[in-house]
Amino acid sequence: ALQELLQEFHYADIAEILDEVDLEQAIYVIKLLDSETTSEILMEVDEDVREKILKQLSAKEIAEEIGELDTDDAADILAELSEERQEQVISQIEDLEHKAEIQELLAYDEDTAGGLMAKELVRVYEDWTVEQCITEIRTQAEDVKRVHSIYVVNNQDQLIGRLSLKDLVTAKSKQKITEIYISNVDSVYVNEDSEDVAKVMAKYDLEAIPVIDHNKILLGRITIDDIVDVIREEADKDYQMAAGISQDVEADDSILKLTKARLPWLLIGMFGGLGAASIIEQFNGSMGDFIVLLSFVPLIQATAGNVGVQSSAIMVQGLANGTIDGNILNQLFKEFLLGLVNGVAIACIALLVTHFVFGTPYIVSITIGIALISVIVMAALIGTFIPIFLDKRGIDPAVATGPFITTSNDVFGILIYFLIAKCILGF
Amino acid sequence: ALQELLQEFHYADIAEILDEVDLEQAIYVIKLLDSETTSEILMEVDEDVREKILKQLSAKEIAEEIGELDTDDAADILAELSEERQEQVISQIEDLEHKAEIQELLAYDEDTAGGLMAKELVRVYEDWTVEQCITEIRTQAEDVKRVHSIYVVNNQDQLIGRLSLKDLVTAKSKQKITEIYISNVDSVYVNEDSEDVAKVMAKYDLEAIPVIDHNKILLGRITIDDIVDVIREEADKDYQMAAGISQDVEADDSILKLTKARLPWLLIGMFGGLGAASIIEQFNGSMGDFIVLLSFVPLIQATAGNVGVQSSAIMVQGLANGTIDGNILNQLFKEFLLGLVNGVAIACIALLVTHFVFGTPYIVSITIGIALISVIVMAALIGTFIPIFLDKRGIDPAVATGPFITTSNDVFGILIYFLIAKCILGF
Ligand SMILES: [Mg+2]
Ligand SMILES: [Mg+2]
Ligand SMILES: [Mg+2]
Ligand SMILES: [Mg+2]
Ligand SMILES: [Mg+2]
Ligand SMILES: [Mg+2]
Ligand SMILES: [Mg+2]
Ligand SMILES: [Mg+2]
Ligand SMILES: [Mg+2]
Ligand SMILES: [Mg+2]
Ligand SMILES: [Mg+2]
Ligand SMILES: [Mg+2]
Ligand SMILES: [Mg+2]
Repeated sequence: ALQELLQEFHYADIAEILDEVDLEQAIYVIKLLDSETTSEILMEVDEDVREKILKQLSAKEIAEEIGELDTDDAADILAELSEERQEQVISQIEDLEHKAEIQELLAYDEDTAGGLMAKELVRVYEDWTVEQCITEIRTQAEDVKRVHSIYVVNNQDQLIGRLSLKDLVTAKSKQKITEIYISNVDSVYVNEDSEDVAKVMAKYDLEAIPVIDHNKILLGRITIDDIVDVIREEADKDYQMAAGISQDVEADDSILKLTKARLPWLLIGMFGGLGAASIIEQFNGSMGDFIVLLSFVPLIQATAGNVGVQSSAIMVQGLANGTIDGNILNQLFKEFLLGLVNGVAIACIALLVTHFVFGTPYIVSITIGIALISVIVMAALIGTFIPIFLDKRGIDPAVATGPFITTSNDVFGILIYFLIAKCILGF
Repeated sequence: ALQELLQEFHYADIAEILDEVDLEQAIYVIKLLDSETTSEILMEVDEDVREKILKQLSAKEIAEEIGELDTDDAADILAELSEERQEQVISQIEDLEHKAEIQELLAYDEDTAGGLMAKELVRVYEDWTVEQCITEIRTQAEDVKRVHSIYVVNNQDQLIGRLSLKDLVTAKSKQKITEIYISNVDSVYVNEDSEDVAKVMAKYDLEAIPVIDHNKILLGRITIDDIVDVIREEADKDYQMAAGISQDVEADDSILKLTKARLPWLLIGMFGGLGAASIIEQFNGSMGDFIVLLSFVPLIQATAGNVGVQSSAIMVQGLANGTIDGNILNQLFKEFLLGLVNGVAIACIALLVTHFVFGTPYIVSITIGIALISVIVMAALIGTFIPIFLDKRGIDPAVATGPFITTSNDVFGILIYFLIAKCILGF
């Protein structure tokens, strides 16, 4: 009865249910349904749920699940197992062609085109006729859930063009492929970064892209559904990095996992705070009458933090989308001007409020204003420079947002504040 | 010569070039190439570049460009014009069917399925034969760049199923559509939120989804390339909101535009800083020997800010992805525990460092430690509560991250710090 009930649901919906229920129940469902469905369910459940389920299945059972999956998904699941387990499972895969293809895919880095591609695709040779193609496609298409483009190769298996199903349907059956194929075909190299593949597919509105090696040999193809996942995961990761969360966690993860992802950044922030404390201690003794300056430390710190995060976020996005025009100096100069504009606006308001509301002497209010301008300009420059610097070094600039920027700006901001105050007020 | 050179490029590449060159040159290129290409280029250039180019074109010229575009893109471009201009352009569109379809699409909100859908699709009636369909598709497919699914409707034009081109190619030509169509077809309602459409398409790995009204009448379809854009834009928007940037800006925008997007958040942060200053002023006079407490204000503030941003980011993502399980109280209790764990860890280290490195008396170090634990727990709770609260009220919780959370946590954190200090140290 449960079996019939579940058969009505889409595998992605069953996966959502299994994410929520107990492990025993999940395993019960997996054993109950046939592997055609359960293999897809396994692909869709949360990674930690899948890990637990796979632990409870024998190598043979996993091999059966994998036998049903497309090669890209099969390789992804295998990659999550220990090497020993991987070998056990692989040795149990019955379809030899499928097995060889999966083993090939296992060799590629998961963040590259090779890690995203599947071996399933429809390939025709340039010297075939339309009729031959249609017969061939009927066979090949059994393995290929969605055909998208038909890839045209020469006798060396080099990609030379493509053909749409529509072209084929509307062509005459005696025509040769050479006469009708489109030689202008987008492709990516197998070692290309997955985020770059996503950019290409988004830019050219592609639903599938063939993957080639450096000899133009057609190796596989990447479909847009997997790229949609890449885009969403990357966006989530960048968002979390900007918020100071260092691993891929979700609200329903364990406290331990969440602590591991969050505590390191809090420690960085804490040491920044202690650094700021020692700066204040340095100036504290000699400040005398100007002890009121300490009241405005939170103002300086909040402003430095906010400006730094804004500047770095714009840089990180600009670098990711390729909209940063010109060189570093141009960008720094622009942020300098922007900091000046924002700084003067903030400083004027702060000057008025501190003097008229808090009653600080003019000279102190002016000091605060000048410090604010300087701190804003500095924070904007640091926020701009660090992502560019990391990017040039080949490090993902997204790590430089959030706590990283706020902490350095806290410390520098407070230092600048007191140095300027010392100069103007002469304590 | 330039014409021939540019003909070699993909329109998306030409659009990237036009984003960089002077307006005059861009307009020269637009007038040079035929509208089949330039209409696609216009869709791909930056919104502000497009606005400038369209200003230089006559209503008739714009109507020609729009005539070449799919209805969804045509409506999007029209929506960017003033109402007066819109009418002028619409009256110049020659193809009456295209015109009516575009006008229909203009009525939908851009953030809904209706705002994303195109009228171009392949529709067949259930009582047709396969042969009839193939003939019909040859005609219909002229307007439809990529067929994806063929939608099957009944005589009331209600969506009842779908058919893949592959099914059609592999079926016998005398078969009736009723015999071969798949009745299980995903669809979205025309007023559904575009982010929800994206979620559905990502979950079920769809490349196109039909759009229906509440009578199940087939109105249009949404393709994955436009959903990829929605996902990327939404991710960029959320990222910017978390960084305190309130409009859709890019690194290459003008200083004025960037200031407009950034200054409001800086002002919020500034008033938070001034609020913190007035709290400090309150306690300042009576603090006496414990003036050293002021040195640790940056530590308290940085910690409160970081924890708040972490908690709110996890909530915002969880709400967006639907992974928040259970009710508010569960989630708050979990963050309470998490805050306690992180708080105790941070407090212990801070206690040791302040006492042994800064030489603050034990009682002061203990005060700082207890304050840190309290502030972290409070920041975690505020960071969790505000997004949930906004979400329940139908406000996008993403606005509650970044400066919004840090500012409120700054003020509350400092208040709690001094209140606790006052209790323990009794000044
Ligand atoms: Mg892979
Ligand atoms: Mg696109
Ligand atoms: Mg497009
Ligand atoms: Mg796949
Ligand atoms: Mg990234
Ligand atoms: Mg999880
Ligand atoms: Mg939108
Ligand atoms: Mg639209
Ligand atoms: Mg998916
Ligand atoms: Mg999938
Ligand atoms: Mg479209
Ligand atoms: Mg959003
Ligand atoms: Mg722009």
